Amino acid sequence: MISLVSSALDLQQGRIDLSHGAGGRAMVQLIGQLFAPALHNEFLAQGDDGARLPLCHGRLVMATDAHVVSPLFFPGGDIGCLSVHGTINDVAVMGARPLYLTASFILEEGLPLSDLARVVESMAAASRAAGVPIVTGDTKVVQRGKADGIFITTTGVGVLRDGADVSGAYAQPGDVILVSGPLGDHGMAIMSVREGLSFDAPIVSDTAALHGLVSDVLDAAPGVHVLRDPTRGGLSATLNEIAHQSGVGVVLQEAQIPVRSAVAAACELLGLDPLDVANEGRLLVIVPAAQADAALSALRAHPLGREAARIGDVVADDRYFVQMHTRMGGQRMVDWLAAEALPRIC
Amino acid sequence: MISLVSSALDLQQGRIDLSHGAGGRAMVQLIGQLFAPALHNEFLAQGDDGARLPLCHGRLVMATDAHVVSPLFFPGGDIGCLSVHGTINDVAVMGARPLYLTASFILEEGLPLSDLARVVESMAAASRAAGVPIVTGDTKVVQRGKADGIFITTTGVGVLRDGADVSGAYAQPGDVILVSGPLGDHGMAIMSVREGLSFDAPIVSDTAALHGLVSDVLDAAPGVHVLRDPTRGGLSATLNEIAHQSGVGVVLQEAQIPVRSAVAAACELLGLDPLDVANEGRLLVIVPAAQADAALSALRAHPLGREAARIGDVVADDRYFVQMHTRMGGQRMVDWLAAEALPRIC
Repeated sequence: MISLVSSALDLQQGRIDLSHGAGGRAMVQLIGQLFAPALHNEFLAQGDDGARLPLCHGRLVMATDAHVVSPLFFPGGDIGCLSVHGTINDVAVMGARPLYLTASFILEEGLPLSDLARVVESMAAASRAAGVPIVTGDTKVVQRGKADGIFITTTGVGVLRDGADVSGAYAQPGDVILVSGPLGDHGMAIMSVREGLSFDAPIVSDTAALHGLVSDVLDAAPGVHVLRDPTRGGLSATLNEIAHQSGVGVVLQEAQIPVRSAVAAACELLGLDPLDVANEGRLLVIVPAAQADAALSALRAHPLGREAARIGDVVADDRYFVQMHTRMGGQRMVDWLAAEALPRIC
Repeated sequence: MISLVSSALDLQQGRIDLSHGAGGRAMVQLIGQLFAPALHNEFLAQGDDGARLPLCHGRLVMATDAHVVSPLFFPGGDIGCLSVHGTINDVAVMGARPLYLTASFILEEGLPLSDLARVVESMAAASRAAGVPIVTGDTKVVQRGKADGIFITTTGVGVLRDGADVSGAYAQPGDVILVSGPLGDHGMAIMSVREGLSFDAPIVSDTAALHGLVSDVLDAAPGVHVLRDPTRGGLSATLNEIAHQSGVGVVLQEAQIPVRSAVAAACELLGLDPLDVANEGRLLVIVPAAQADAALSALRAHPLGREAARIGDVVADDRYFVQMHTRMGGQRMVDWLAAEALPRIC
């Protein structure tokens, strides 16, 4: 018998082939030599078809996200940390404490093992920093030309915080709208790489885990109505969704919305609106006016919220319009992005 | 404003384009008109970035699986029901009651909406039949040629049954090995389509949700040591894994291993060993000898276990060999499938 199990993967020159997804020795070798050492934790070490987790009591929250970002590596991050942050954030904005993640990989034949190792190391670092372990996973391999390098789906489980009751359906006229920082960094970091744009100061993705920030905001302003991370479709899509879910209107103040100058410049060059561009580490907070200052202070006191701003108000509007007072003194509709301007941004 | 939200998807002639993954109106339309009606349940209807679930108490179990099977539709099933069964089974063989599933879709631009609708309907039917709702999901779209139709990752959460303590690491010398039915049906159903083989009676996938069967077996034989569904790599890979995890050997009796004649014939034609071929609705049970009869009776009393059989024994072997007494009276090693003989079988 050839004992492939004990031979070493060539992490410098090796490439993924179909045998790495076939359930045999090569797959065991990939898991044992690449995934397991990087992501190591007591749950993953169980080595069964899933993970047995500790006793848990409370209302569960689940969220899942497929990640297909292209390119795999970009200024400020990569598909690995992005896939950890994205799902942690989806759990956190439900008002829950994220506890566990799962990760499933779809790999394209020919993928350099060095790229995979770099991505998995990045996931591991993000997971450790967030304190949310990746407890089980799966790997499939498809033929060359049937995927694009690496796709990662992460799923998160959390437990609802006591008293937390937030939903996109809970915005009310009179509520105040806050964002935790400048908009459009992630999307324009990706687009800059794709379009070969360069700036004096490169645009860096804002990808980050927001559960700590969410926790601080809910402690300071327990009456918060809505929490969201404005990812695909940007602030425009997120606010239009919330307006429809809650049956309200929104009025934004353009002059108050933070956008970095490089992001604004890149958007202008590419004919994009920063409000349509994805963020991966920004928190949208909709809060009753009486708690708005407390929420804003909590945001600004956190490293991820230093540039937080109050950007608008929820109003009564049975057309569910999102409108904006422009810098020029006019008013315009903030519609959802209709087209495919920004594919594979996350 | 164009109100795309209220226009209707063309489910007969329409195709997926990049806008369906871009976070805007087209995505809302796809979710609202295709996913939500098919998969409808109270959790999915919350419409937030994740699902808020009821109070839960116990030890959680999580499992995740990416599904990349090709072709998408095959005799006995499709990628939709397969993705529901696969993850339910991974949770069930941990000794847990599956409670909730999430589903993430990676779609290729150009995919007929009719194919997507058929797959989602199949998931919905499988989820309803199993009593395990799909509580939240995600959809991404990649350019034509960057995926292959549909990839689906499902993640399951369950709660460990009281007293259940099963693991691939718990097999002991003297234990008896049972399987719930004939081996190789799923893999050969896929391969028959791919290779254009036809038989008098077509080979049909065994894809099925095994949580009911698992529950009956654990009720009848609470001392069960190991439960597994022998998927990728088939019985060979599963038993070799268990042998390594538990530090034991295995001796199989070829004459006792159920394999349908059409599967045996197709395997011979393609140079495959039925023991290497994936199953998607078969249960492997390793149980102390004293409870073997009870476990076998419970298997046979269930519609999914009528053809259950006792196929071998766990032995002491510090080389962790899986061996087989052949029909011809000889003995051979049952090694793991080394190569990529069966890519994209699940």
